[in-house]
Amino acid sequence: MNIPQTSFPRVIIVGGGFAGLAAARALENQELQVVLIDKHNYHTFQPLLYQVATGGLEPDSIAFPLRKRFNDIENFYFRLAKVTGINAEKQIVETTIGNLEYDELILATGSTTNFFGNTNIQKYAMEMKSVPQALNIRSLVLENFEEALLVTDLEKRRALMNFVIVGGGPTGVELAGALAEMKKGILPKDYPDLDIREMKINLIQSSGELLKGMSEASSEKSEDFLIKLGVDVWKNLRVLDYDGETVTTNSEDHFKAQTVIWAAGVKGAAVNGLAEECVIERANRFKVDEYNKIIGYDNIYAIGDVACMETKDYESGHPMMAQPAIQQGRLLGKNIIAKLKKKKQKPFKYKDKGSMATIGRNKAVVDLPKWKFQGFFAWFVWMFVHLFSLIGFRNKAVVFMNWVYNYIRFDRETRLIIRPYKKKNKYSFKEQENGNY
Amino acid sequence: MNIPQTSFPRVIIVGGGFAGLAAARALENQELQVVLIDKHNYHTFQPLLYQVATGGLEPDSIAFPLRKRFNDIENFYFRLAKVTGINAEKQIVETTIGNLEYDELILATGSTTNFFGNTNIQKYAMEMKSVPQALNIRSLVLENFEEALLVTDLEKRRALMNFVIVGGGPTGVELAGALAEMKKGILPKDYPDLDIREMKINLIQSSGELLKGMSEASSEKSEDFLIKLGVDVWKNLRVLDYDGETVTTNSEDHFKAQTVIWAAGVKGAAVNGLAEECVIERANRFKVDEYNKIIGYDNIYAIGDVACMETKDYESGHPMMAQPAIQQGRLLGKNIIAKLKKKKQKPFKYKDKGSMATIGRNKAVVDLPKWKFQGFFAWFVWMFVHLFSLIGFRNKAVVFMNWVYNYIRFDRETRLIIRPYKKKNKYSFKEQENGNY
Repeated sequence: MNIPQTSFPRVIIVGGGFAGLAAARALENQELQVVLIDKHNYHTFQPLLYQVATGGLEPDSIAFPLRKRFNDIENFYFRLAKVTGINAEKQIVETTIGNLEYDELILATGSTTNFFGNTNIQKYAMEMKSVPQALNIRSLVLENFEEALLVTDLEKRRALMNFVIVGGGPTGVELAGALAEMKKGILPKDYPDLDIREMKINLIQSSGELLKGMSEASSEKSEDFLIKLGVDVWKNLRVLDYDGETVTTNSEDHFKAQTVIWAAGVKGAAVNGLAEECVIERANRFKVDEYNKIIGYDNIYAIGDVACMETKDYESGHPMMAQPAIQQGRLLGKNIIAKLKKKKQKPFKYKDKGSMATIGRNKAVVDLPKWKFQGFFAWFVWMFVHLFSLIGFRNKAVVFMNWVYNYIRFDRETRLIIRPYKKKNKYSFKEQENGNY
Repeated sequence: MNIPQTSFPRVIIVGGGFAGLAAARALENQELQVVLIDKHNYHTFQPLLYQVATGGLEPDSIAFPLRKRFNDIENFYFRLAKVTGINAEKQIVETTIGNLEYDELILATGSTTNFFGNTNIQKYAMEMKSVPQALNIRSLVLENFEEALLVTDLEKRRALMNFVIVGGGPTGVELAGALAEMKKGILPKDYPDLDIREMKINLIQSSGELLKGMSEASSEKSEDFLIKLGVDVWKNLRVLDYDGETVTTNSEDHFKAQTVIWAAGVKGAAVNGLAEECVIERANRFKVDEYNKIIGYDNIYAIGDVACMETKDYESGHPMMAQPAIQQGRLLGKNIIAKLKKKKQKPFKYKDKGSMATIGRNKAVVDLPKWKFQGFFAWFVWMFVHLFSLIGFRNKAVVFMNWVYNYIRFDRETRLIIRPYKKKNKYSFKEQENGNY
């Protein structure tokens, strides 16, 4: 991998998400060599992916080049690669571009979509964990509308205009809300020949509440907001299968839909090579102690979504969200420095700053530890927090500009099919031509 | 294609570039049905593609959704499709989504890259006529640098850092300048381990002058600017072949390069189905009369790059640029209205407003009909004209913001590999994984 061997200990961080970046930041300018490995050359601000998928933001405004982030840091190396395995005995990370020895290894590989073993759904449904995936959804939504214009068969047309979002967590709720706003303000203008009433947005949640983990008030209010926006909310309904045409459930309800977005589960993206005992099978997360050290290893750590720290308050680990990731990353960085300086390390204690979700224009829900509120002010707080959390001045400025524009003009202008999505299901519109179309 | 038959005559416009949009605009709100067909759902502002390719602008800021442009126009229809042929006898346009009858047909299909029959070059070189192609270049440049980091073989590394741009027209000159600025300000910071002196930017022009068609002062000054920026300018050198490794020329000079961008020629994108006599074979443009009517047809017109109007001042047609396209489109729209109202039509007369090219920061050349100037003020004029010509307030605002940011910070922040480019040549970095990477 062409990284110099120095007298400094080498810390390898796998993953440039919230956790990995926080750890790298904390390790800056120490007597250490830091190597960050990621399969993308940019950090993705995942909380805003749904706005890319619905034409509200350009992808480049929620991605930040990782190299730039560490431009002026000494002894820092970035490598664009996929990690394929770990050899803990030899202290080696195996990647698509070669192997590298580590002294300390931090796994911050995040999470991937969990299809719970259903290969049909995996094949036909869309997921939204990365920028290209969000762009695929953006393309597909628009392609379906273009195609619906041409289809005279009522059932087929309705299937093209039927959107099923599976999973009532923040991703599902925010995406359903954003699609509903497209239905309200954008699509009827762009497609005046279509009867917009034929467009359906279904949000399916297997349990009895949306935004599980948030307060009851937020859960109820978000449902309220969604219904007002015209989303059909289905609770206590479990999706069993999707064959590219029909979504079947555990009830008599089924949905003929050409677009199914699977936001019903994530699992850790655990890396291969460590002992079986340290991976929680169902969640695919690494069991870590209160110092984020993976059980059974002395110098391998996991942070963020891929880490599962079982504590009294969080029996099955912390929520797979940005905040625990950032806090763990930051602390682990400090602890590694302490370890190398033979100082005392601090155990992790999650400081829950609250959570929030936005449903649409002036509509959000916010749970702070001591205050829960919904509506316009919540929406304002949501925007402020997200804008503030974005990395980089340029990204902040472009996102801000888009939001002001979208708000004033009731618009979403990045409704572009830059790369047509190559559909795998029946009503395929046309072939993607070698990426050059 | 599911477009209603009305008592109004139907005008079909093929292509939503500068020419097609100008024509559509001129035909708005008349007693006509207008159908615009394009293979993209957006208009591409081609003059700024090179800034997308070099990480200075996000693709979404130079693309504008075509449907939005005509949101509130009566009797206007847009269809996302590729035109595959024309049946002039039956007055039918054949497309990937079916056939459609026309009363008047406007072909504004623009131009494509001209490889002059060299299939090797076509296979291995990059082109830059569309947003996805510009994004491919952006990815490739960055991927090559990521790979160069790993390669210890000097010759291979230099090939990865060697950029050959063939063609000294505006595209080649602007792209070479932008790459040189990346070399100056961005890449050494992002890749401190690479010796940036190993990066070469070669601009090859077969004739003795750059920016052919512009004034001698502009041509010389642009070469001057490029050389100052560190570009190796090769004049009177003709590229013969490129096998994915080596560019061979008509002299002893050859270039081992992993990136070759072919900007040495364009040809019209003439549509199939019309009589052979009306297509100029070498240029693949339609011969039109002074009313942009294709020779031999009564109700089929060509405008913009695909039209070749041979006049005294422009013996082989007007330059394939935005201005003639816009002027022809606008006039043709008016002439068709006049024709239907049985009024007198006006022959086309090109009003040359001048031309310009930018080489870099504070460096541009401008030829106005009565005034030619170069340098900072030219650069300022270039920016103003291009900003003003972009469609849509949001696009203008985002581009302006990026330019201010890039200027103040000497930066280009959209250096993102969103979709890795699947290289066809030898030193392939890694496979593009199903577009979902």
